[in-house]
Amino acid sequence: MPIRPAIAGDIPQILELIRNLAEYEKALHEVRASEKDLIDSLFCQNPQVFAHVATDDGQVVGVAIWYLNYSTWLGKHGIYLEDLFVLPQHRGSGHGFAMLRHLAQICLDRGYERLQWWVLDWNQPAINFYKSLGAIPMDEWTVYRATGDALEKMAAANSPANNP
Amino acid sequence: MPIRPAIAGDIPQILELIRNLAEYEKALHEVRASEKDLIDSLFCQNPQVFAHVATDDGQVVGVAIWYLNYSTWLGKHGIYLEDLFVLPQHRGSGHGFAMLRHLAQICLDRGYERLQWWVLDWNQPAINFYKSLGAIPMDEWTVYRATGDALEKMAAANSPANNP
Repeated sequence: MPIRPAIAGDIPQILELIRNLAEYEKALHEVRASEKDLIDSLFCQNPQVFAHVATDDGQVVGVAIWYLNYSTWLGKHGIYLEDLFVLPQHRGSGHGFAMLRHLAQICLDRGYERLQWWVLDWNQPAINFYKSLGAIPMDEWTVYRATGDALEKMAAANSPANNP
Repeated sequence: MPIRPAIAGDIPQILELIRNLAEYEKALHEVRASEKDLIDSLFCQNPQVFAHVATDDGQVVGVAIWYLNYSTWLGKHGIYLEDLFVLPQHRGSGHGFAMLRHLAQICLDRGYERLQWWVLDWNQPAINFYKSLGAIPMDEWTVYRATGDALEKMAAANSPANNP
């Protein structure tokens, strides 16, 4: 299961994989990333996001896109895996796990103590797989997101009265 | 509510705030970060984690520690707020919101479309506050974490049979 860092020539295939994953997550209409966006993000001078690809017979069949998170308790970075996807016709051959294993090894090599990612609650095959690896659901926590109008209102607003 | 980027001289106070927050989250025993860890992370040549502080009368009374996340759908970075904390005796004056507002403004200035953070499900005052700002709970998703033995087993293991 060869895994290697992505190169600029992989971008068209990586974007195709991103679109495939969004379709699986019923959100293809939300994909607005262009090839240029991905190149600018992944291959700029000091990238803050990274990609590895899984290949089969030289062809890109899977992608892992990740960045560094940070634990203030540990005072250390860790890896946050944003997207992990393998083409449906190439599943069951261990490509997904090979990418996870590669990232786990990067964590160990760098002294990072946490590899994290998030999972849709209805994606039971993925949940079973991740639990079988010993990953723990952080189910005491919920991620909140401000976007669009909320973000603009936050930036503009005066301090609301119910600030805890 | 003056907000400014943290400087190295703030580190002792920032570590104290991190310890205060961990205590509130009932996890003080998990804090292993040292002042050196924080300096190495925040003030290295290409930092991948950042801090802003809230001050009152020149004294640091709150901290926001954040890094860049990435949306493959948007092809853009966003901000992930890892820790937001204000000393209990300085709450209710808008310091927490001033830091959130500052980060929201950074998002708008840079064209980022998402500001995210996570919240303990029992922290109802915080949840009420964030919802009042228009933030949306991403409650279809759960974060999974591999650490310690699980991370080492992942790095070492052969591909398991139930790889989806």
